[in-house]
Parts: sequence; C-alpha cells; structure tokens
Amino acid sequence: MKIHTTITVELGDRSYPIIIGSGLLGGGFDLTRYVSGQDCVIVTNETVGPLYLDALRADLGGKVVNVVTLPDGEAHKTPAAVNAVIDALVQSGANRDTTVIALGGGVVGDIGGFAAACYMRGVSFIQVPTTLLAQVDSSVGGKTGVNHPGGKNLIGAFHQPDVVLIDTDTLGTLPDRELRAGLAEVIKHGAIIDRDYLSWLEQNMDKLLGQDPAALAHAIGRSCEIKAQVVAEDEREHGKRALLNFGHTFGHAIEASVGYGEWLHCEAVAAGMVMAANMSDIGADERSRLTDLIASAGLPTDAADVAATKLRDAMRLDKKVRDKRLRFILLKTLGEAYLCDDVSEARLAEVLSGI
Amino acid sequence: MKIHTTITVELGDRSYPIIIGSGLLGGGFDLTRYVSGQDCVIVTNETVGPLYLDALRADLGGKVVNVVTLPDGEAHKTPAAVNAVIDALVQSGANRDTTVIALGGGVVGDIGGFAAACYMRGVSFIQVPTTLLAQVDSSVGGKTGVNHPGGKNLIGAFHQPDVVLIDTDTLGTLPDRELRAGLAEVIKHGAIIDRDYLSWLEQNMDKLLGQDPAALAHAIGRSCEIKAQVVAEDEREHGKRALLNFGHTFGHAIEASVGYGEWLHCEAVAAGMVMAANMSDIGADERSRLTDLIASAGLPTDAADVAATKLRDAMRLDKKVRDKRLRFILLKTLGEAYLCDDVSEARLAEVLSGI
Repeated sequence: MKIHTTITVELGDRSYPIIIGSGLLGGGFDLTRYVSGQDCVIVTNETVGPLYLDALRADLGGKVVNVVTLPDGEAHKTPAAVNAVIDALVQSGANRDTTVIALGGGVVGDIGGFAAACYMRGVSFIQVPTTLLAQVDSSVGGKTGVNHPGGKNLIGAFHQPDVVLIDTDTLGTLPDRELRAGLAEVIKHGAIIDRDYLSWLEQNMDKLLGQDPAALAHAIGRSCEIKAQVVAEDEREHGKRALLNFGHTFGHAIEASVGYGEWLHCEAVAAGMVMAANMSDIGADERSRLTDLIASAGLPTDAADVAATKLRDAMRLDKKVRDKRLRFILLKTLGEAYLCDDVSEARLAEVLSGI
Repeated sequence: MKIHTTITVELGDRSYPIIIGSGLLGGGFDLTRYVSGQDCVIVTNETVGPLYLDALRADLGGKVVNVVTLPDGEAHKTPAAVNAVIDALVQSGANRDTTVIALGGGVVGDIGGFAAACYMRGVSFIQVPTTLLAQVDSSVGGKTGVNHPGGKNLIGAFHQPDVVLIDTDTLGTLPDRELRAGLAEVIKHGAIIDRDYLSWLEQNMDKLLGQDPAALAHAIGRSCEIKAQVVAEDEREHGKRALLNFGHTFGHAIEASVGYGEWLHCEAVAAGMVMAANMSDIGADERSRLTDLIASAGLPTDAADVAATKLRDAMRLDKKVRDKRLRFILLKTLGEAYLCDDVSEARLAEVLSGI
C-alpha cells in the first residue's frame, strides 16, 4: 500500500498540493489529473532522466509526452538553457494548455519553471523534485529563474506549480554531499521559525544522514509545511518570506567570491547561517547549538579561506541589496528570525574578520 | 494650464492610473511620485530617444536616471534585446527598488516591460507610450514579451505598470502610416464592444487623421477605458480579454506568411477584422460599415496577394491555437463580439478563398 501525505500551499485560486510519499513515481499514482491539456513537456537532465523518466512516463499514460534533457549542474542555469526549453516547446507544437513538468533538482525546476512562466506568458507547471534541497526548498513557493554573470537568480519569475510530487525514494540515488546540502535548508527552517523542529533535528540527524525513511518523510513534510506557510503569507517576498533568506546574504557572497559551483549553494548558506548567528544578539549557548547542528550534518561552519574583503565586495551587487543597504536575517533566539537592514559597516567588518 | 484626464485600471492592489493629456512630457508633471526607489532606467530607441528623452528626464528631477537605447523596429523585439536591457540594469547597479521606464512605441514597451518582469523576478515599471498604437493598446493591460522565430510574442509575462503616462503631443512626430495603424486598434474597440463609439469614429475619422487634438484625446481616452475595463474583468485572458483579439487570428497569419515587418501588425489586424466580419453571421450592411470605416482610415481591407494555403499553414502554429483548434473572435453585431472555437475547416477555407 502506498501512503502519502498532502500539504496545501494556500494561495487563493492558485492554491496547490504538495504530495509526499514513498513509491509514488511509477507506482500507479495518477498524475494525469493535474494535466489539463493533451500534452506535456518533461524537462529533466542527463543524470536524473535515465533514472526516473520511464517511471514518470508511466504516471502520464494517455498524454502526449515530449522530453527536453538538459546538461546537469548549476553552471547550466542560464538564459540559454531557458531558450533551449522554449525552442523545444515550440518544436513540439506546445500551446497554452501544455503542461511543463520539471523532473530533477533545483536547477531543472528553476529552468523549467521559468520557461513555463514565459512561454505564451505562462503555461501550467508541475514539479517532481528528486533532490532533498529541491523537495524542501526550491520546488515550493513558485520562485523560478536563472543566473546572470552579475549575480544569482537575477532573471526570473514567480510562477506557482499546479502540484508538487515528492517521491522520497528518489533520495536513494542522491550523492551524499547533496543530501547534506538539503539538510542545511532543513536546519534553516528550524532556526528561523520552529525551535521544536530544531530540537527534533538535533535528536534525529543521524537517522536523516542514514536515510531512515520515516525520519526523511517527517523532515520533508515539516519543512514543506513551514515553507508553504511562509509563502502563503507572503508570496512575493515583501515581508515574512525574506526570513527564508537566513544565511543567504553571507552565503551568496561566499559563492560569488569563490565562483559559483565551487561550494554548493547550501554549503555556503550553512556557513552563512553561522555568520548570521554571530551577527545576532543571541547567547553563546544558542550560537553553539546551531553551529554544532550544522557541523553534525557534515556542513561547513565557516568560510575561513575566503578573504573578508572579497566577501564585502561581493555583497555590494547581491540581489538582497535595497538602495545600497545590506539586509540581513538575524536571530532573536533559536526558532525566531527577523529582518535587519541597519547593520553598520563596522559591525559587518567585525563579523567578516571573525570568520 | 495643462489639462489631463485619468483612467484607472482596476486590478485590486495592483490598480494603476492612465494619465492622458497634452503637454505632459517636460511640462512640469511630477513623475517622481511614481518612482519609489532612488533610481530608474529608461528604455527607449534611437528614434524616440532624441525627441523626448530630455523632457522625460526633466520630469524625473532628483532621481538617478540611466538610459538604454535600443535599435528601432519590430525586428529587434527579441530575447537578445531583453538581455541587453538586463545587462544594462546589472551594470547600473539596479536593485529591487529600481523602476524601469519604457519611452517609445509598443516594441519598446514590450521589451522594457518584459525585462522589468524578469529582473530580480519583477521590478516596478512605467509606460510612456509615444505611438497611438501603444497608447490605446499595448501600454494598457500588462502584456509584455518578445518574438520567437516560431511565432509572435511567444516569450513573455503579464507585468502591470505602476502608471501609464500618455502625452498626446507625441503623436505630432509619428509617421502617418503608424497613426493609421493605431486607428485600426481604435476601430477594433468600437467593433467588439461599443457601437456608439464606432458611430463616433465614422463621423470623426477625418479629424483623427488630421490630428485634431480634441478628437485624438477623446479616442485615446475612450479606447483606454474600454481596454482597461476588459483587462480589469479578465487580466490573464481566460475569457473576455480574448475579445481584444478580434482580427488577430487572421492578422497573425498574414504577418507570418509575408514575414514579420512587411505589413505593420495593425494593418494585418485591419484586414483580419474584415475577414473575421466575413466569417461572422452578420448582415451585409454591417459588414460594409466596418469595411468602409477601415478603408476610410487608409487601412487595408483584404490580403488578396497572400495565398490562402499560406495563411492556413501559418494559422497552425499561431499562439491562439488551443489543442489544435483554431479560435476566432466573431461579431454578433457591430459592437458585440464573441469567442468561437468550432469553426469548420470548410468554413475557414471559404473565407480564406473569398479574400
């Protein structure tokens, strides 16, 4: 028997379900109920396609299915990749009722989602995330987009999916380093909003690293709930949604300084969270708890080999800059974050030099 | 004294005003009240820039103003042009509070608007349309986008402006052929929704062609009202907004058949409206009234030199195709249009061979 849970992202007439379970892909789940037209275009990459494309096709019985296979990796999250998907949509005769389905990690979801947002000014979109990071973060919330040499995700759109289908079994083929990366986002959810969840993570980190199915399902479910709730309250990131950027101002600076691809995004965010905690007015014990939890997931807790001046320069063009002012998400306490945009240059220099 | 009228496009918290008047640009109108951040990027082209850039700059006193100048013409409405605008935004250090201002015709508005929609997933946008067509059509309603070799406007977004500023004096520098093109859209508004307006146009076409200021102001105002009302009822073109595509299924086919740029878009729509009227079950007298009005504006009423088979082929990839079915906007009577998606191949062949 296949058991799955459903979490709803509440966005009025654009509300949609996140379906989480084991054995969903190719297991008889009827995905066609979410495909309103006659045809769909699956966007995947050369790594994930061979693993799960046949199973996904089986769930789409009766629909015309076209496939676009992209190269794997963040380096390919470019406008050129979006153009390639749009060319494929045109060639397959896609129309306004066509559904784009992203099968893969965050990069595939971002490219496929942005292509779906732009094609004929927006067609239907389904996310089938196959990495922990995409499952708990990028597939929920409607952010799509690609990188520009001037910065990450500089070109994009908000485009909500019709459904997100998460098969936890896909984590079985995920490299260990990417599992750990996803755990950085999971830890982030606890740190900014849910102290109890953070305690649960402290107690269950070994199980998560060991891919215990029940532990994974619990973490994915709770993280999706948290993210869905934040997105429902603030779809366009005018307020609360910004809290999800905890660790990101530092993290983006690390990525930009070492060149995208050197660190994984979430590894940079992990070290960024420690730096943001160092900037926060919280107790040393709380700081240690967060740092230890991040370390226990096998994630970096500092960026000691990156020069502070390089990080400061990188922050200047960071997309979180508002009118030349840097914005940081800081902690009031573990489980409660807030937006701070009046950090002084001196305080920033202190934290950067302390790495 | 500067007199201007304001029409509001009602879209809830994204409602915005269309300000119409003579002598607005460089005439002391305070545009800065619509620029929330410290800087803006004006997107214009090599023809319009030299004429109105200085005046627009004067209306933006106190703001940092950067300018991107694009080549003129529909041939340049491409993803490459959007990338050029985004590159300029990055280079100027644009952030989420930057405002993009489109100064020019529909092409500039479509490119600038789409770049604003995509940059950091959406920044503020102001339209300053300088052609009649852009004033009564493309600047109102939030449609933005660029062409793909596979079809017109295949890549785009819905992105509403914060304000539309229409200075009727800019029509003084508009080539006669483009004024006539704009009148095609004006006639369309009467034909699909407002029989009284159509009668007014029959009586005032000479004044409009002679650029009588009062007549122009009336037509622009009434056309904006009609378009604003339709958009407010149906922002994303699921229903009523489709009526604005009267003449477009044929028109796009004409453009695609002869190559974009040979006919002006609105010239093709003008001939397309006559073809759609021929397909409609209306009296011969009504058909003649519409045809005569279009002819009196100096617009084409047929596409006799384009082969019917070529038009039929072009329609197959037209973006108005839904699940391989062609959609036409037809007339119940002058001033009342409806969507029809069950036109038989035989009936279509009849109308096409009758041109």
